[in-house]
Amino acid sequence: MNSQAASGVYGPVRDDLPRVETLLQSLRPNEFPFLARIMNHVLEAGGKRIRPALALLAGKLGNYDLDHLVPLAASIELLHTATLVHDDVIDNAPTRRGRPTANALAGNAATVMVGDYMFAHAAELVARTGNIDVIRLFADTLMEMATGELHQDMSAYAYGEGTRDYFNRIAGKTASLFATAAKGGAMVAGAPDEQVEALRAYGESLGMAFQIVDDILDFSGDADEMGKPAGSDLMQGTLTLPSLILIERYPANNPVKRYFSGHRTESLRRSLAMIRESNILEESFNVAVDFRDRALASLEVIPASETKETLTDIAYWVTQRRS
Amino acid sequence: MNSQAASGVYGPVRDDLPRVETLLQSLRPNEFPFLARIMNHVLEAGGKRIRPALALLAGKLGNYDLDHLVPLAASIELLHTATLVHDDVIDNAPTRRGRPTANALAGNAATVMVGDYMFAHAAELVARTGNIDVIRLFADTLMEMATGELHQDMSAYAYGEGTRDYFNRIAGKTASLFATAAKGGAMVAGAPDEQVEALRAYGESLGMAFQIVDDILDFSGDADEMGKPAGSDLMQGTLTLPSLILIERYPANNPVKRYFSGHRTESLRRSLAMIRESNILEESFNVAVDFRDRALASLEVIPASETKETLTDIAYWVTQRRS
Repeated sequence: MNSQAASGVYGPVRDDLPRVETLLQSLRPNEFPFLARIMNHVLEAGGKRIRPALALLAGKLGNYDLDHLVPLAASIELLHTATLVHDDVIDNAPTRRGRPTANALAGNAATVMVGDYMFAHAAELVARTGNIDVIRLFADTLMEMATGELHQDMSAYAYGEGTRDYFNRIAGKTASLFATAAKGGAMVAGAPDEQVEALRAYGESLGMAFQIVDDILDFSGDADEMGKPAGSDLMQGTLTLPSLILIERYPANNPVKRYFSGHRTESLRRSLAMIRESNILEESFNVAVDFRDRALASLEVIPASETKETLTDIAYWVTQRRS
Repeated sequence: MNSQAASGVYGPVRDDLPRVETLLQSLRPNEFPFLARIMNHVLEAGGKRIRPALALLAGKLGNYDLDHLVPLAASIELLHTATLVHDDVIDNAPTRRGRPTANALAGNAATVMVGDYMFAHAAELVARTGNIDVIRLFADTLMEMATGELHQDMSAYAYGEGTRDYFNRIAGKTASLFATAAKGGAMVAGAPDEQVEALRAYGESLGMAFQIVDDILDFSGDADEMGKPAGSDLMQGTLTLPSLILIERYPANNPVKRYFSGHRTESLRRSLAMIRESNILEESFNVAVDFRDRALASLEVIPASETKETLTDIAYWVTQRRS
């Protein structure tokens, strides 16, 4: 899914998203062409811009002031991207979505620096909103994401995590920033409290659905479309919903357990086969659909409008996407 | 210089600094003992706590409300420490002040994570001040420091940097956070504008003096007290004031130039000898004293008080310290 294909679903804010792009581009450290190229590389890898789109759409529920909404949307995308960049350093990942990672291209040193530079800009941009509650929300989200990252990495290769830990982990890692994008946009626009809360709940459930679908696609997706081999999460020692369901079904004897105890190649192949040949991906998908439906239910208090239709379309798109 | 020895100079805020320490300790991620130990290790390495002391002292110029000043002071120390931690990853440094770095002990992955976790907490703590101007100041400082770090690392081994570049670089890397500590404390306390500006100017000049003295001690200091060999900046390809003065004196033919063109061992030895045997360190020290005097001059508008005396003492201490 590239940004062109996704932007079709963004309705009334489609034509304003390029302003977010322009702002992001303007932050490149042009006096250091090497670093500017790294930043370009990682921003281009981001792709769908779903978080900025949510922030702008939420802004449609109140005073749609792009001078404040565009910095918020850019801030959230920068925070997201900076997190990916540092994750790639932490995981020592060679590729992300089929493209070489910044650390593979430029080394850890420059990559950590560019990540920090993007975090700094994210903080500066959110301060431009001039809204203390939005800034607090941003800081709390940063905390949730950093803690979520600790949990993810400290539980890698920790066999025994359950689905509850998984839901907590993706709530911190993904859903929190979706929630902040949607809630923050509504707050900046001064939308009524009830709608601010509705957007937060929508964003959170949408983020959960988004991450679960991501984790399903890691098993089911086409390697070319996804830009990574099937099962790459498991290969990195990260348990996601499909492998956790497999573990629950065969607690005494299952290939994921054998994989984690060191019998790697054959156990990985066997895990993938068992997951793909069973109804585990379908069961996982039903969980994503459940979160999507919760997201849709959260929209009930929003008055009928093009914005509401678009938020609805996005929720369906999130569970229908193929990459 | 350890924190016990330094704290004697902090006068009226000496007994409140432990509250900053307690807050910092409370942020350790205790559910992950490994990461909590890394964070402890890097916080202990910080040492002097001069930045938190400045923030609290500045708060004495207005409403000395520790509920807001302590989070600000802790936020600034965390930002400082997180920067050091990421710098060590960027520079691949094995030791800092004689102690192994976090990356040497725990690897880059955990270290980047702990740095991000500390950045996140710093943002959350500054948001607790509830002061939008202080938050903006914090975000701008983060930007200056990140840009300063880019400049430092992109100019490593770039022979040809002049003293002006050096002053710009240390302004971003060190003086900006000193200025923010002092200005931020005064702002949180609601000190009069004239005093807020005086504290900013004081902090900035003090930070310049502090960094220049650091850079002199890198050449002149006792290896045991400093915990690193003499000339370690030059060894890492970083030009500081003493080596820049040496270059200016012998533009056509000098050992720093030969060091940068690859004749390492003998040229480094020769550079150290020429700097230590000349009056270059004295000349550099005079520049530090000049900045100290500017810091003292900035205090003129501050009414006579124990706080003013302590700020004066700190300025003298900064240029008199031996490590």
